[in-house]
Amino acid sequence: MSDFLNAEQLEGVDAYWRASNYLAVGQIYLKDNPLLREPLTLAHIKPRLLGHWGTTPGLNLIYAHLNRLIIQYDLNALFVAGPGHGGPALVAQTYLEGTYTECYPSVERNANGLQRLFRQFSWPYGISSHVSAQVPGSIHEGGELGYSLAHAYGAAFDNPDLIVACVIGDGEAETGTLAASWHSNKFLDPARDGAVLPILHLNGYKIANPTILSCISEEELSALMYGYGYDPYFVEGDDPAQVHQDLARTLDTIIVKIRDIQRLSRQPAATAQRPLWPMLVLRTPKGWTGPKFVDGHRVEGTWRAHQVPLADFQQPLHVRQLEDWMSSYRPDELFDDNGALIPEIAALAPTGHRRMSANPHANGGLVQPLNLPRFTDYAVALSAPGAMRAEATRILGTFLRDVMKDNRQSNNFRLFGPDETASNRLDAVYEVTAKAWMEPLHTEDINLAPDGRVMEILSEQVCEGWLEGYLLTGRHGLLSCYEAFIHIVDSMVNQHAKWLKTAAEVPWRKPVASLNFLLTSHVWRQDHNGFSHQDPGFIDLVANKKSDIARIYLPPDANCLLSVVNHCLKSRDYINVIVAGKQPEWQWLDINAALRHCQTGIGRWEWACHNDEQPDVVMACAGDVPTLETLAAVTLLRGYVPDLRVRVINVVDLMVLQPGWQHPHGLPDRHFDDLFTLDKPVIFAFHGYPALIHRLLYKRASHDNFHVRGFKEEGATTTPFDMAVINNLDRYQLALDVIERVPRLHAQVPTARARYWSMMEKHKLYLIEHGEDLPEVLNWQWTPPVVD
Amino acid sequence: MSDFLNAEQLEGVDAYWRASNYLAVGQIYLKDNPLLREPLTLAHIKPRLLGHWGTTPGLNLIYAHLNRLIIQYDLNALFVAGPGHGGPALVAQTYLEGTYTECYPSVERNANGLQRLFRQFSWPYGISSHVSAQVPGSIHEGGELGYSLAHAYGAAFDNPDLIVACVIGDGEAETGTLAASWHSNKFLDPARDGAVLPILHLNGYKIANPTILSCISEEELSALMYGYGYDPYFVEGDDPAQVHQDLARTLDTIIVKIRDIQRLSRQPAATAQRPLWPMLVLRTPKGWTGPKFVDGHRVEGTWRAHQVPLADFQQPLHVRQLEDWMSSYRPDELFDDNGALIPEIAALAPTGHRRMSANPHANGGLVQPLNLPRFTDYAVALSAPGAMRAEATRILGTFLRDVMKDNRQSNNFRLFGPDETASNRLDAVYEVTAKAWMEPLHTEDINLAPDGRVMEILSEQVCEGWLEGYLLTGRHGLLSCYEAFIHIVDSMVNQHAKWLKTAAEVPWRKPVASLNFLLTSHVWRQDHNGFSHQDPGFIDLVANKKSDIARIYLPPDANCLLSVVNHCLKSRDYINVIVAGKQPEWQWLDINAALRHCQTGIGRWEWACHNDEQPDVVMACAGDVPTLETLAAVTLLRGYVPDLRVRVINVVDLMVLQPGWQHPHGLPDRHFDDLFTLDKPVIFAFHGYPALIHRLLYKRASHDNFHVRGFKEEGATTTPFDMAVINNLDRYQLALDVIERVPRLHAQVPTARARYWSMMEKHKLYLIEHGEDLPEVLNWQWTPPVVD
Repeated sequence: MSDFLNAEQLEGVDAYWRASNYLAVGQIYLKDNPLLREPLTLAHIKPRLLGHWGTTPGLNLIYAHLNRLIIQYDLNALFVAGPGHGGPALVAQTYLEGTYTECYPSVERNANGLQRLFRQFSWPYGISSHVSAQVPGSIHEGGELGYSLAHAYGAAFDNPDLIVACVIGDGEAETGTLAASWHSNKFLDPARDGAVLPILHLNGYKIANPTILSCISEEELSALMYGYGYDPYFVEGDDPAQVHQDLARTLDTIIVKIRDIQRLSRQPAATAQRPLWPMLVLRTPKGWTGPKFVDGHRVEGTWRAHQVPLADFQQPLHVRQLEDWMSSYRPDELFDDNGALIPEIAALAPTGHRRMSANPHANGGLVQPLNLPRFTDYAVALSAPGAMRAEATRILGTFLRDVMKDNRQSNNFRLFGPDETASNRLDAVYEVTAKAWMEPLHTEDINLAPDGRVMEILSEQVCEGWLEGYLLTGRHGLLSCYEAFIHIVDSMVNQHAKWLKTAAEVPWRKPVASLNFLLTSHVWRQDHNGFSHQDPGFIDLVANKKSDIARIYLPPDANCLLSVVNHCLKSRDYINVIVAGKQPEWQWLDINAALRHCQTGIGRWEWACHNDEQPDVVMACAGDVPTLETLAAVTLLRGYVPDLRVRVINVVDLMVLQPGWQHPHGLPDRHFDDLFTLDKPVIFAFHGYPALIHRLLYKRASHDNFHVRGFKEEGATTTPFDMAVINNLDRYQLALDVIERVPRLHAQVPTARARYWSMMEKHKLYLIEHGEDLPEVLNWQWTPPVVD
Repeated sequence: MSDFLNAEQLEGVDAYWRASNYLAVGQIYLKDNPLLREPLTLAHIKPRLLGHWGTTPGLNLIYAHLNRLIIQYDLNALFVAGPGHGGPALVAQTYLEGTYTECYPSVERNANGLQRLFRQFSWPYGISSHVSAQVPGSIHEGGELGYSLAHAYGAAFDNPDLIVACVIGDGEAETGTLAASWHSNKFLDPARDGAVLPILHLNGYKIANPTILSCISEEELSALMYGYGYDPYFVEGDDPAQVHQDLARTLDTIIVKIRDIQRLSRQPAATAQRPLWPMLVLRTPKGWTGPKFVDGHRVEGTWRAHQVPLADFQQPLHVRQLEDWMSSYRPDELFDDNGALIPEIAALAPTGHRRMSANPHANGGLVQPLNLPRFTDYAVALSAPGAMRAEATRILGTFLRDVMKDNRQSNNFRLFGPDETASNRLDAVYEVTAKAWMEPLHTEDINLAPDGRVMEILSEQVCEGWLEGYLLTGRHGLLSCYEAFIHIVDSMVNQHAKWLKTAAEVPWRKPVASLNFLLTSHVWRQDHNGFSHQDPGFIDLVANKKSDIARIYLPPDANCLLSVVNHCLKSRDYINVIVAGKQPEWQWLDINAALRHCQTGIGRWEWACHNDEQPDVVMACAGDVPTLETLAAVTLLRGYVPDLRVRVINVVDLMVLQPGWQHPHGLPDRHFDDLFTLDKPVIFAFHGYPALIHRLLYKRASHDNFHVRGFKEEGATTTPFDMAVINNLDRYQLALDVIERVPRLHAQVPTARARYWSMMEKHKLYLIEHGEDLPEVLNWQWTPPVVD
């Protein structure tokens, strides 16, 4: 085949590649002598060699070639580096483009800056060895592996002009999330959304093993990619000149194809159908251009190239080998006397916002606040506490519908969920949009359309990855999920929390919209599913995060849920977890009371007891079902102990329980002690595992007074009330707890216990006989206290 | 094509299918009148309709056809039902086979038993709506979705005679774990292992959406399966007679092919290569044979068939529709006057252990204890505490090597890990086995072989799924993983914990080997990777599990690690989490001391302080790095406050901290108070998040005395000692903590603080300048206390 690049182009792209490889090796190894202007000695080499060379030359190759393409086609492109260890490559690229120096002026574009650049890498108080939030142009750290492609699709949604080049390592490709993410093309509308260009980089090895996708036949690999809905192009080789030619030609073909797809789909009369998107399979040696052999072992092209191919510099031979290796990039041809990249090479990079490292999409740069309707307009009209039932999430659905509607012009809000939006009763949103879906429709299919803004795939991980990519490129969203199954994304949420923490320490990073979770179909109402669907532990995970990131809300009713979601959609840089039921439940606060209650995050519900000033006992609750059981217990206690003085406290914002020095939402000790008293027993009915309350409280003076009821891992396919019973969170148990703990009721304890056991027996017999709850439970209704 | 089944066979399999569908519908709907011997009325119908019809007829169809095949070929087969909602189908099948009655004698094979069978389903104190541990023959609940194929492969490993039929729902197929699990065929040796027959059941819909795999073209789907390494066979239709013929013919072809593969690969001279395994794609309508229309809406073949197609029985028409539906199966032809399955139909099921519901593999039935070498033989020979350094996991590797070797005859032990076995320094096992790998090898590939017993794929989820399947079929294993990334399987571990809890309540379920995790490359030693690899929170998740299931161990050195792993490998029905470092660290206990220490789970280290009887302060530690820092602080304090009386307590078994009534390992209060005193400050250096210690301790009388240091989410690419510093777990901080908290040292606090800050400054400057730790830290060595 004739050459695609002319000699000058070939030399240019190769020089650019050599420059970036040189900078990458320098980062991994050198603390001094960055331009090798004197013979390399042990003193120039870092004492601790920490980094990963293996994936680096491949990333650099792709980046350099994309630069050529960006200039030629004036592309608006973003680079997602799946192989997370590729920090040295991406830092090198951003440095070559000048963006690094713009973000970190002390890392100048000269010999002095080079030395800083090298030294800081994987150096204490320097920079991470991964493509972290410190790296300009990055929205993806990749330290954990598996999320690159979902992030790339999230970035491409609603950015019609954007091309997201996503390098997928062949190790990463074995992970579950990545394997599921390929099908994201069924949810990307070529008319409305941008393009994702997956680049599967086969370098053959993981840490210590060959990779699956590099070992299967090209026939199988090609079929696999076609089966995922892509048209794979293959480039393979270990001769740089030939690979440059093949890669340039192939990427050119791919870009033309992407543009054709977009042009056709964006014609006025175009019928929406999923195109066969092109993708690239690039097969090059692991640690390409690095040492071929070390101590007699082959390194280049093997798993031995994964981290630092040369490591034992007590051997002078290794010092020489490193020098030879670095010199092989001919730094003198790349950098001038001052250590600046020579202008002819620098000119091969795009400029301004066309640089992938300076693309505003990668810095949440286009974020604009959501246009939020007044949430109070969607309120349940409540004449008095407990006057009616409502489905909290269904009410919320009407608000979300109008959030969707009111931000249609901006195209910057989407709802995500694993096939559960309707099940979670948010289906009012379908009045104004559909679920994104590019496949053919059948007669009975409803609420599906290519340009839908509700994103449903039966993978919590892909949903989460899409949402993260969407948020990190400056947009807004909310993920609703069955409470138990959100644990599937625990590790992704950990990584996002780490990103947020690191990004907050990077001065040039702009805020991004918070990661919002609505967890519903929760532990207490899994009538259809039982034990496998019962787990309230995600909030424990989030409570371990930095207090400037983690927020947990347990709105007790629909109006509080509206207030909380409204607040979360306006917030920035948090992880907000909201837990709320979808079933018809009693409503407690009118919208004004709800607003006040949620602003404080905790409150005394004076209306629940006629004299709560000098209480005998405090009954606290957090979560909708615990609130119901607590109030039902209050009505029981009125009958059992008419003169008992009870104070009811409801907690919406769990973090108020921590002291102020532990969490910014923490209630000052004085207020906390006023609310809970310093000496009265507190019976706390909690949505989740009781231990979470104890750990939040342990620095409070009165923590020994707290007796917490919550989920104790007793799940079953049973009635809602029986779920409370088998976990000892039910009204009868709570009432007994009170009587057992108020000293002056000591004499009544035996009677109370007898009454409790007899009630439990009655409950169980009725349940087994009728398969549903006692009429007095099913028909229970709140009655206000009688004022003396 | 000519008929495959003759008329009698066709009628037989169809009758069997009708019988099972009838029983499934009955379970979902009826509490009485099980044989419809009187006209159906509202009184016969359950008040709460909880279950899932959609997937049920497909599961029944497959099961019935597999029965035919089992008899014809005398197959040893296991059935894994991926569509977890398929409880009614699997319960029906096990009832038809008689196994259900053998396990639950009160559910007789007559009208009375039928009524019990129907009534108990999704009924309080009855059975779960999923394929739970209550169902004979099941090793897979499927409530969460995604793990069926990995479980199936885990069951097939080392069971050469077994065929695991794994039904994969098209909803489940969208999950990450399932998508990654297809490649398990690269790790299954047809000569040594059994066969997995994946059956992708396309019924078109999830809860509320079409499924991806049902919507893409057959060309793409076929390519996808071929790309995953399978030879797909397609059966499709909605005419029962035709589908019966096609399915029977196709399954027959597939079984012959599987047997051919096995025969060829098991010939003496066979060269090991991955065969192209057959798999089945079955496309039938969702809710097939159910109501075609309800209230004017199409139901059969749509998402509306997902749960209960008929639900509003206040409409008499719906009662009639249900009666018509159930009668359409012609129950009078299926059950005799007593309500027993008529013998001609019953005879179509296999008998004894050939029944999939009675296959001993599905009940851990073949479990035999591991043949464990004496772990004391692998001990580090230690002349005195702190006399030498060793890599704990490397020592463990030699023990695991011999566990592997000594159980080779039984073929019942494997090691699992996501490409990290060597990185985690367990590579001694490669002296006796290799990593399983069916692909072609390259020159530099080492330790790879088709019959390897180390299972490495870069997916924590697939590793976990394999191991669970392996354990639940009666074998043993251990999964080693970077500590941070084990969160990827949080949700799978939740589900396994639920399985263990439920199984323990099922009288006929036999114990299985514990699920053992070795978490290494832990938070404190991520020099190469930094923040993205730093998270010690998995133990928080496990601590939320039932106390009869969860065990957490933090061995402080190599000998303790040996003792703990030895114990865990012998245990049953637990989830054991062991956290231990892989780096060279100081060793503390000789093997006898380690054995005693680990048996108690906690202990005073009298050798660390010369007078710890009446301490001024207790210094407690859990985890290898916290232990090191604590002992270093002890040596510092000797210099600062020569007359200070310190007691050092090391915790190996975290659960001893809980009271005995909360956890069986909980230390009696008296012992606990003796150890920690009731009035002295306790400085606790902890491996993980400090809150975990507080929640374990909160019921202890002295809990207010505890001051816990641990990971506070401050991660970085830095030195090991600096990781301790930035999280305030370092020796200087711990020493300062002591001085600040011992009342009689009050006057020394200002000096101590000044000394601390000056040391921190010195540390930081040295670190930034040299990139490594202060010589006094690097070269620190334990010195025993001088006895007066």
